[in-house]
Amino acid sequence: MSKRTTPDVVVVGSVAFDSVETPKARHEKLLGGSASYTSMAAALFAKTGIVGVVGADFPAEYFEIFERAGIDTQGLQRQPGKTFHWSGVYEDNMNNRRTNCTDLNVFADFNPMIPEAYRASPFLCLENIAPALQAHVLDQMAPPRFTVLDTMDLWINTTREDLMKVIARVDLLTVNEHEARHLTGKGSLLKAARKILDMGPRYALIKKGEHGAFLMSKDDILIVPAWPLVEVVDPTGAGDTFAGGLLGTLAALGEVTRENLHRALVNATVTAAYTCEAFSVDRLRHLTRQELEARAAAFRRMLP
Amino acid sequence: MSKRTTPDVVVVGSVAFDSVETPKARHEKLLGGSASYTSMAAALFAKTGIVGVVGADFPAEYFEIFERAGIDTQGLQRQPGKTFHWSGVYEDNMNNRRTNCTDLNVFADFNPMIPEAYRASPFLCLENIAPALQAHVLDQMAPPRFTVLDTMDLWINTTREDLMKVIARVDLLTVNEHEARHLTGKGSLLKAARKILDMGPRYALIKKGEHGAFLMSKDDILIVPAWPLVEVVDPTGAGDTFAGGLLGTLAALGEVTRENLHRALVNATVTAAYTCEAFSVDRLRHLTRQELEARAAAFRRMLP
Repeated sequence: MSKRTTPDVVVVGSVAFDSVETPKARHEKLLGGSASYTSMAAALFAKTGIVGVVGADFPAEYFEIFERAGIDTQGLQRQPGKTFHWSGVYEDNMNNRRTNCTDLNVFADFNPMIPEAYRASPFLCLENIAPALQAHVLDQMAPPRFTVLDTMDLWINTTREDLMKVIARVDLLTVNEHEARHLTGKGSLLKAARKILDMGPRYALIKKGEHGAFLMSKDDILIVPAWPLVEVVDPTGAGDTFAGGLLGTLAALGEVTRENLHRALVNATVTAAYTCEAFSVDRLRHLTRQELEARAAAFRRMLP
Repeated sequence: MSKRTTPDVVVVGSVAFDSVETPKARHEKLLGGSASYTSMAAALFAKTGIVGVVGADFPAEYFEIFERAGIDTQGLQRQPGKTFHWSGVYEDNMNNRRTNCTDLNVFADFNPMIPEAYRASPFLCLENIAPALQAHVLDQMAPPRFTVLDTMDLWINTTREDLMKVIARVDLLTVNEHEARHLTGKGSLLKAARKILDMGPRYALIKKGEHGAFLMSKDDILIVPAWPLVEVVDPTGAGDTFAGGLLGTLAALGEVTRENLHRALVNATVTAAYTCEAFSVDRLRHLTRQELEARAAAFRRMLP
C-alpha cells in the first residue's frame, strides 16, 4: 500500500511477543498483541493500517508477516528497548488462562501517533490501551468514522472516569462476558448490554467465547453462535480477531446496516475460529479468501 | 380428541408435583414432570398423547390443563397412592439447582402401558425413565416412527447396559452438556456428539441451556443459540419443553428434513424460553400460536 493511501481500517493497540504454553505445546516469543490479531483479521477483508510500538528486538520477519498480509505498517513505531512481552499458560483443557508475566517494556510509554495518511480512515478499532490514549487517538482522527472500542478490567478498576468518557465517544463497545458484568454491575448479559448503550455507544458487542456473541442496539439484537471447533490449539487473540473480522467486513461493505452487521458477525466468527486452530497468527497468515468464504457459507447453513 | 384418534406425538415420562423455590418466590405442588412439559410443548404444534402415572391426590384441575391444551390423557394412569413429588431450590441467581426431595411414590412402580390408539403414532418421545421401561414402550409401538430419547446420570451410572441397548433403537438422543460428557467420557461436546452417533442414533441433540443447542448427524451440524431472555423466573422443564417443541414441529411438518429440523429447533428454542418465563407450565398453557409464531419470526431475524 502506498504511504499516501488512506486505509479502510485503522487498528490501534499492542504488538507483542507472546510466550504461550498449552497442555500440548509451548512456544516462545510468537507474534502476538491485540493489534496484531485485529489487523491480520481486518486485512483479510479491507485495506488495514496498524498503529503500535515495538522494540529494537522486533524481528524483520514479523514486519514481513504484516506486510505480506497487505497491512500498512507506517503507524508501527520502532523504539529503542524491548518489545512488550506476555507469557501465559492454558490449563484444564484450555478453560483457564494464567498469566506468568506481562513485561510492558516499550509499550509502557506508548504514545499512539496517527500517520497523516490514516487520519481520514472511516473505520477505527481502538484496542485495549489506556482510555486517555484511546481518547488521544480519537482527537487525531477526522470524523465521521465508525469506531470500535475494546477495554479490560485494569482500566475499569483504575481509570473508570477516563474510560466512561471515551466509551461515550465511540459507536461500538466490545467486551467479553466477564468485562461486561464488571463494567456495568449487571449479572444478566442482556441488562449489561443495555447499560452499555446508556453509556453512549450505538452498539454493545458481548463476546462469549465458545458460546458465540451478541450485538445489541437500542431496539434490536443480533445473535451469532460460535463456529463448532473440534480442537482448540491456542485461543489467544480470538476476541481481537473477532473485532478485526467484524470491522474489516463492515469496511469492505462500506455501510453499517443490519444486513452488513450480520455478514460481519459471520466473518468475525469464522475468522476467530481460524485463530484458535494454530498458535499466534499462523492460521490467519496462510488463510485464503476462498477458504474463508467457504467456511462462512458452511456456517450460515448450520443456522436456521 | 376421540379415543380412537392416533396422536401425532406420544410422550412417555413423569408427571409430578414440583415444589420450587427461587431467589424471588416459592411455590408448592405445581404441575411438573418431564412428560407434562414435553406434551404441553408438543401440543402447541401437533396432536399429542401423554403416557404417565399419577396418584389419587392428582387434582382434576391438572387433568384439565392437559385437556384444555388438547392433550389426549387416556395414557395417564391413575393409581392408588401419592403422585411423584420433586422439590428443589434455585440458588446463586438460578445458576445452581439443589434437589431437596425426590419422592417417587406411584412413579416407583410405573409400568408404561401404551393405549391401543397410540401404538401407530409416528413420533415418540421417551422421556427420562429407566431404560428397560423405555425399551418396553418401544416393544409396544408399531414401527416405523421417529423416536427421541432422553436420559439422566442415574441411568448412565446404574443401568448402562440397558441404556446402550435402548439408545441403539432410537433416532435421536437428547442430553444436556453434562450428560453428554458423562455418557461418552469426552470433554469436547462435538466429540461427545460424534460418539453418541456411534451408539446408533442418527441424531445427537446437545442442549446447552442459556447457550443454545446443536444437533449433530453423521455429516452435518445444525446450531441454534438460545432466545435472549432478560429474566428467568423458573427454568424447570426448559429442556423437556425443548424436546416437545422439536418433536411437535416435526410431527406437524410430517417429515424429518434438514429444513424442518431447523424450523423445529427454532420452535423448540422459543417454546423453552416461554417455559422459563413462569413457574410450571403456566406460560405454555396461556400461549397462543400467534404469539409463538411472532417470537419464532423475531428469533430468526436475530440470526445471520
